[in-house]
Amino acid sequence: MSSLSRELVFLILQFLEEEKFKESVHKLEKESGFYFNMKYFEEKVQAGEWDEVEKYLTGFTKVDDNRYSMKIFFEIRKQKYLEALDRQDKAKAVEILVSDLKVFSTFNEELYKEITQLLTLGNFRENEQLSKYGDTKTARNIMLIELKKLIEANPLFRDKLVFPALKSSRLRTLINQSLNWQHQLCKNPRPNPDIKTLFTDHTCTPSNGPLAPTAVNLPVAKPAAYPALELR
Amino acid sequence: MSSLSRELVFLILQFLEEEKFKESVHKLEKESGFYFNMKYFEEKVQAGEWDEVEKYLTGFTKVDDNRYSMKIFFEIRKQKYLEALDRQDKAKAVEILVSDLKVFSTFNEELYKEITQLLTLGNFRENEQLSKYGDTKTARNIMLIELKKLIEANPLFRDKLVFPALKSSRLRTLINQSLNWQHQLCKNPRPNPDIKTLFTDHTCTPSNGPLAPTAVNLPVAKPAAYPALELR
Amino acid sequence: MSSLSRELVFLILQFLEEEKFKESVHKLEKESGFYFNMKYFEEKVQAGEWDEVEKYLTGFTKVDDNRYSMKIFFEIRKQKYLEALDRQDKAKAVEILVSDLKVFSTFNEELYKEITQLLTLGNFRENEQLSKYGDTKTARNIMLIELKKLIEANPLFRDKLVFPALKSSRLRTLINQSLNWQHQLCKNPRPNPDIKTLFTDHTCTPSNGPLAPTAVNLPVAKPAAYPALELR
Amino acid sequence: MSSLSRELVFLILQFLEEEKFKESVHKLEKESGFYFNMKYFEEKVQAGEWDEVEKYLTGFTKVDDNRYSMKIFFEIRKQKYLEALDRQDKAKAVEILVSDLKVFSTFNEELYKEITQLLTLGNFRENEQLSKYGDTKTARNIMLIELKKLIEANPLFRDKLVFPALKSSRLRTLINQSLNWQHQLCKNPRPNPDIKTLFTDHTCTPSNGPLAPTAVNLPVAKPAAYPALELR
Repeated sequence: MSSLSRELVFLILQFLEEEKFKESVHKLEKESGFYFNMKYFEEKVQAGEWDEVEKYLTGFTKVDDNRYSMKIFFEIRKQKYLEALDRQDKAKAVEILVSDLKVFSTFNEELYKEITQLLTLGNFRENEQLSKYGDTKTARNIMLIELKKLIEANPLFRDKLVFPALKSSRLRTLINQSLNWQHQLCKNPRPNPDIKTLFTDHTCTPSNGPLAPTAVNLPVAKPAAYPALELR
Repeated sequence: MSSLSRELVFLILQFLEEEKFKESVHKLEKESGFYFNMKYFEEKVQAGEWDEVEKYLTGFTKVDDNRYSMKIFFEIRKQKYLEALDRQDKAKAVEILVSDLKVFSTFNEELYKEITQLLTLGNFRENEQLSKYGDTKTARNIMLIELKKLIEANPLFRDKLVFPALKSSRLRTLINQSLNWQHQLCKNPRPNPDIKTLFTDHTCTPSNGPLAPTAVNLPVAKPAAYPALELR
Repeated sequence: MSSLSRELVFLILQFLEEEKFKESVHKLEKESGFYFNMKYFEEKVQAGEWDEVEKYLTGFTKVDDNRYSMKIFFEIRKQKYLEALDRQDKAKAVEILVSDLKVFSTFNEELYKEITQLLTLGNFRENEQLSKYGDTKTARNIMLIELKKLIEANPLFRDKLVFPALKSSRLRTLINQSLNWQHQLCKNPRPNPDIKTLFTDHTCTPSNGPLAPTAVNLPVAKPAAYPALELR
Repeated sequence: MSSLSRELVFLILQFLEEEKFKESVHKLEKESGFYFNMKYFEEKVQAGEWDEVEKYLTGFTKVDDNRYSMKIFFEIRKQKYLEALDRQDKAKAVEILVSDLKVFSTFNEELYKEITQLLTLGNFRENEQLSKYGDTKTARNIMLIELKKLIEANPLFRDKLVFPALKSSRLRTLINQSLNWQHQLCKNPRPNPDIKTLFTDHTCTPSNGPLAPTAVNLPVAKPAAYPALELR
């Protein structure tokens, strides 16, 4: 994708955000992979919406891309596992162990075995290394600090953590400019052209003719002069 | 939202579709409520992804908006319920009965009771009215025909079932026009201006000066003349 | 079974009770069907051990034996069902509805439908007829009063509710008498015969001979004279 | 319990068996702990009724009584665990791991860990040591051979594996003898006394008087002469 196409995606993201199409914003962030919205990620982690957390991440990296990514997924799945254990949902815990955590056994078999062994404890805090695990909320926040560090250090997220500085409603501004462009191609542009659609280019009606002289001032140059467009 | 803003959403939908940002497309269809994608709806119904089916619908209507909407939701939830019964997942069936179907008991208590009673049958096809229910796939397709009729007859979906006719990549075309507009504001526009970003308006460099005469031809009028923009 | 065989079962029940073989006692009560132990039944009902409650009952009656029996089973299964609903275990409730309560639908279809409908309430006490249902313990005790009346009125339990009056350890007494009988068949019975087993009849050893004269007093007539038997 | 009391239990066991009070037989075997019925044990193991298998065993030994007992319980619980894994019931498997198998972790921690690890395999036969585990039926039979050896070698089961040789209906024979004894205490015993109950001792009616002479033959000595007793 060209750099201008890429920029267009950012303009759309800004537009969707301004229009409060929140889910669309995050889907596009994810599907384009251009901008990792840390605030959104934080919210989902704090809410424990692990499916969405992982889905969002996969817009940017896979578990085996590098050591940072691996650790990110590991921490998330471990947390998910501990929470299942904590609410005594052992069936779910085994499922997480087999579906989500098994991939890590190749890299650290002993660790995987130790994690499996937690299943047999009444409370996983009996394991010395987990003895300081507090409640769910606290644990998620502690993990979040770690995740943010890993994401910031991860080269795959480089340049994706800051949203470009844009004047508000940049996409609308450009659209307005395009309308100006369409109108000034008329023989006799008017200050208040009646542009009714974005779907097809503006065609100048003959009635524009008599008004031609006023076009000398070229007011069309100032987008703000087209209130009828109502794009803002 | 103004009609031009509304049109801009359609241009974005076209762009997302062309760029294969599929999930973003459907989220925006739903969040804007401007276009009901019947093909997508069909796919989700046929796949039995009831959560997504309902979520998508809520972009356009609520269960109690009118009789059509009510019937749409009723048919979907009934199907979901029958499928749970069919795979002998009675716990899930009761959950659907209580969470999803109960709302309809106000309108037809007898029907709700009859539906509840299906729980006690080994096979709901023992109920005469359901004796012709075939397998899941067939049942979903039969329901789909009904759903499409209901959606087409539903005033809330009027004018939302056809995507407007647009030349391909309409949003890019407009963006190109805006760049043209930016450039022609220069004292001495050139045929091949080097525009590097959409984020800020183009500013004419002094070096444009000597080239001024060529601007007489105003070649900038033809967007196709800017291959460097690479937006397509 | 002859009336004496029947009586022997009672002697065994007394023996098992005295020896604290509690489970054996209740199994024999049930398998013989001779004595319905109301106290045991009460305990099991109050503990909500429905499987054991029903198993025990089947030693005496089947659900369709008469109207009393039907009501007994109905009350128990209804209670079991309401308790499942009360702890929000809807899967179990449906199972009870289908496996345990369905048999009653033939006799009262409307009632069965009404019971099924309770599944759809957040709290079955919303049903007017159940609005006074208190907590589990209270409900079990109220049901128990009803069950006892039904059992007492049920002809199938007639004469099975009172354990016959017996001197303590009656079976041992009879066994002692049998040993006395065995010994007095000796030519020269002695006051303190050394009887070592119940498995085979006592045979008189020649050494008994010289002691013959003492047998004139026939002390063997008093079982208490054989302390060596140690059966008490 | 005296040896004669112990023998009385065996006579009762024989009686219950002859009367087909099967559940009572096994409950009494278990509660007395006098006779371990290998045939019954085999049936329950082959049927996979693990709860009953363990309950029955506890009449004779506890898991930590000796090495044989420990191995018996271990083999049974391991089998129960493997069967849960085999039907993909991981929730049940974890429960068995925690409730039933944990006790063995003190004696062999490594083994316990290895068993826990089976949870994470799609099929426990992937573990080399279990690669030859066939289907459930075969596995139960192989275990049964081992269990029988362990039981036979276990000192706690010594002398409990063979039921004493008894003439049939020994308890009835003794009861008949006791009735004979009661009757011969009459002044004038008759050959066919009308004995109506076991609950109280026989009392001689005056009408016996005239028949006294016949008592000289003492036919009462042969229990078979009392057909009216109908105890057989």
